[in-house]
Amino acid sequence: MEGGTFTPLTPEGIRRIHLAALDALEQVGLADAPPSGIDIMTRAGAVLGEDGRLRFPRALVEDMLAKAAKGITLCGRDPRHDLTLGARRVHYGTAGAAVHMVDPHGREYRESTVQDLHDAARIVDQLDNIHFLQRPMVCRDIPDNREMDLNSIYACTSGTTKHVGISFSEPDFVEDGIGLLHMIAGGEAAWRARPFVSNSNCFVVPPMKFATESCQVMEKVIAAGMPVLLLSAGMATATAPPTLAGAIVQAVAECLAGVVYVNAIAPGHPAIFGTWPFLVDLRSGAMSGGSGEQALMSAGCAQMHQFYGLPGGAAAGFSDSKLPDMQAGWEQMCSNVLAGLSGLNMVYEAAGMHASLLGFCHESLILGDDIVGQALRCVRGIEVTEDAVSIEMMRSVCLDGPGHYLGEDQTLSRMQTDFVYPTLGDRTSPKEWAEVGKPDLIAAATARKEEILAQRASARFDPQVDAAIRARFNIHLPQ
Amino acid sequence: MEGGTFTPLTPEGIRRIHLAALDALEQVGLADAPPSGIDIMTRAGAVLGEDGRLRFPRALVEDMLAKAAKGITLCGRDPRHDLTLGARRVHYGTAGAAVHMVDPHGREYRESTVQDLHDAARIVDQLDNIHFLQRPMVCRDIPDNREMDLNSIYACTSGTTKHVGISFSEPDFVEDGIGLLHMIAGGEAAWRARPFVSNSNCFVVPPMKFATESCQVMEKVIAAGMPVLLLSAGMATATAPPTLAGAIVQAVAECLAGVVYVNAIAPGHPAIFGTWPFLVDLRSGAMSGGSGEQALMSAGCAQMHQFYGLPGGAAAGFSDSKLPDMQAGWEQMCSNVLAGLSGLNMVYEAAGMHASLLGFCHESLILGDDIVGQALRCVRGIEVTEDAVSIEMMRSVCLDGPGHYLGEDQTLSRMQTDFVYPTLGDRTSPKEWAEVGKPDLIAAATARKEEILAQRASARFDPQVDAAIRARFNIHLPQ
Repeated sequence: MEGGTFTPLTPEGIRRIHLAALDALEQVGLADAPPSGIDIMTRAGAVLGEDGRLRFPRALVEDMLAKAAKGITLCGRDPRHDLTLGARRVHYGTAGAAVHMVDPHGREYRESTVQDLHDAARIVDQLDNIHFLQRPMVCRDIPDNREMDLNSIYACTSGTTKHVGISFSEPDFVEDGIGLLHMIAGGEAAWRARPFVSNSNCFVVPPMKFATESCQVMEKVIAAGMPVLLLSAGMATATAPPTLAGAIVQAVAECLAGVVYVNAIAPGHPAIFGTWPFLVDLRSGAMSGGSGEQALMSAGCAQMHQFYGLPGGAAAGFSDSKLPDMQAGWEQMCSNVLAGLSGLNMVYEAAGMHASLLGFCHESLILGDDIVGQALRCVRGIEVTEDAVSIEMMRSVCLDGPGHYLGEDQTLSRMQTDFVYPTLGDRTSPKEWAEVGKPDLIAAATARKEEILAQRASARFDPQVDAAIRARFNIHLPQ
Repeated sequence: MEGGTFTPLTPEGIRRIHLAALDALEQVGLADAPPSGIDIMTRAGAVLGEDGRLRFPRALVEDMLAKAAKGITLCGRDPRHDLTLGARRVHYGTAGAAVHMVDPHGREYRESTVQDLHDAARIVDQLDNIHFLQRPMVCRDIPDNREMDLNSIYACTSGTTKHVGISFSEPDFVEDGIGLLHMIAGGEAAWRARPFVSNSNCFVVPPMKFATESCQVMEKVIAAGMPVLLLSAGMATATAPPTLAGAIVQAVAECLAGVVYVNAIAPGHPAIFGTWPFLVDLRSGAMSGGSGEQALMSAGCAQMHQFYGLPGGAAAGFSDSKLPDMQAGWEQMCSNVLAGLSGLNMVYEAAGMHASLLGFCHESLILGDDIVGQALRCVRGIEVTEDAVSIEMMRSVCLDGPGHYLGEDQTLSRMQTDFVYPTLGDRTSPKEWAEVGKPDLIAAATARKEEILAQRASARFDPQVDAAIRARFNIHLPQ
């Protein structure tokens, strides 16, 4: 599904942002690269200043943009879930590092667990409009970070055969994680042929500093053949400039530095241009993810990705509301539909996410499938074919026919092809609604969740593979 | 605020729809014009067929498009609420003919009353982002239609000084209604100088038939100097073609017939091109107003209005959900934000409307102010001025400064100008939210409603005028 009908940036605006980002790379540069990164990037042509900052001449940036992978495929463990990124193709999925699970019935926030994560993966596996699972929450019941990382991989990949995104906490954990992935894939060659897990690298600490450890993680996962998400998550007004355009400039500059970094290591390595500018509500200092400003920034970023011809991603669809209420609905739709219409390749945080990324909710994830389905219908747009605007049917209906379109062949066929029907969204009349007991939307989502989780988990590993994994690693999920 | 960044129709698509609409007017034409309308339109150049249908040669349509009012002003009773329509200027308001009031706490639907309508007017008067009040519900406690029409005018205009839209049920009621408006205005001359009420004319019964009585109403209100909304409300798959583009073609054709009609009576009379294509969910036969398809159709219509250079309106922002829940939120945002981004002049049904137009909810109206505020922020877009993308602040923050943007002068000034803050939308952290008792969104809206309705009604008429009105008409609202 291709977007492109929403263009908050003009061509002149895109060019201004591009030129400002190049200026920032050349004049401000980035601090705190690890020694390995300094070595890699200065050999490619970056300049290390006396202030310890790496600066990037624009010719270097342009060279690396030419080398960078344009269209890339993010593999699912099942190939029918493969995602082809590039142009204005739109995919939606989860993401984040929520620390709470939301219980919408009890209105409670509690610490998220590995079981919650696995359940989220199993739910995503069954939702038609959620195309990938990036780990949306951290397993707070696993205090050891190495074990948490490994169990996060296990919980996600054993729950869905869709593409999975994870994030290593420390460089030292990569080797074990890759070992686990080799076992799941059936060996290193099979893994490298179809890497079904990508790593989300928060490789910068905005403004304009590399995140030293995350860079070291990135070097290791690139060597292991893992696609990377180059994630720049500045907060407009705090760690990014206070204008929407300025925040995009900084995110673009930081991600361009990431493009230089990745392609200096491995030209053409699959990388997602992850401009994720967020923003802070200065009244409280809290993030506001549900705002119109957020929707605009993420959509504007999609246009920058298209300008560079690079596969890109940004955050949308998350809410500031604590519960799956009306506010959550309007916030989640606003940024999801604008991201899709702008042609954002990877819409991260698209479903289930509340409290400005602090809480994840399974019911909301399930309802998010309807939201994203509707957004995708908008992305598909209005087809103005000769057939669609033909007045032949109007002529026969009005001049010779019954005076309505209900029984026409085309009406029945269009009903199948042109209209999207929500799964849980309710379209009954007030009378019917009362007759069926005034169903509650959240209760319906809980019922759907329980139905999904009662099914056999189809993504589970072969028992022998699973036993071998459990023999090597401390897997917390029960067999 | 001007839209235009969302363009679901390509220029070629717009042209195809235009040409198909001209073909429909020339070949299919419209049945059921009243004798007066046949006389008016045939004298202008329309052709009456032996089948009783009026057909419109394209030269006639083009002539009348040239005569039609382009930019028009819809007056408020208070001039600061005047709305200037045309180009891609966006305004949001209520509309409809709901027969129920929604009680979101008791989850009940009950018959709507004149007091409910007056309360809605008083609430709209206080909401910054709701720019006009078209009567959203019918007064079911007034069985006599003439009294209902007069009391609807009274209930709306005495509740708000914003522009009001009403709809006369029968031609015979117009004279009394205009008499009432003259009294409110302070005489006929004052009324004609600034007509602060427009009439919504469902002047067609799709497909391609005039609504005889509504046409007679229209002739009378035009003579009385009242702006008209030329409303074509076909239902795709039932009374309009089953493709989104086809439904737009028919709505455009019908409204073009209306343009001929109005301008044959009074060249340049203020009229709103009211293409309101709806759609039916064929699984149930029920209307689906909350769908992505609805959002696309209304946005596509805005592009057609712009193509003709005429002030236009369409429906958006109404929900299929029975309650102000998460579904209502996502549905109301989807079509509201796309309508705004497309530059729709008049977004009708934008707030408070549920159950596919059958139920109106005061709490939802209040929350709709936040939804529309956010949509308007999206319409405003991303300003890519030289100042906004300047890297000077980035340079000083990163190279010489504190490493963040929090204390910068520009940050504080941008906080005032660039960011929209919701009134009831909650951005607290889970911790703060728990500390303040986990406030409920709907309860907060009810509190705001009670606060507004406890204030003195500032739009009330001068006591002498009011006494005169009550002496002449049976006004049901208490003094």
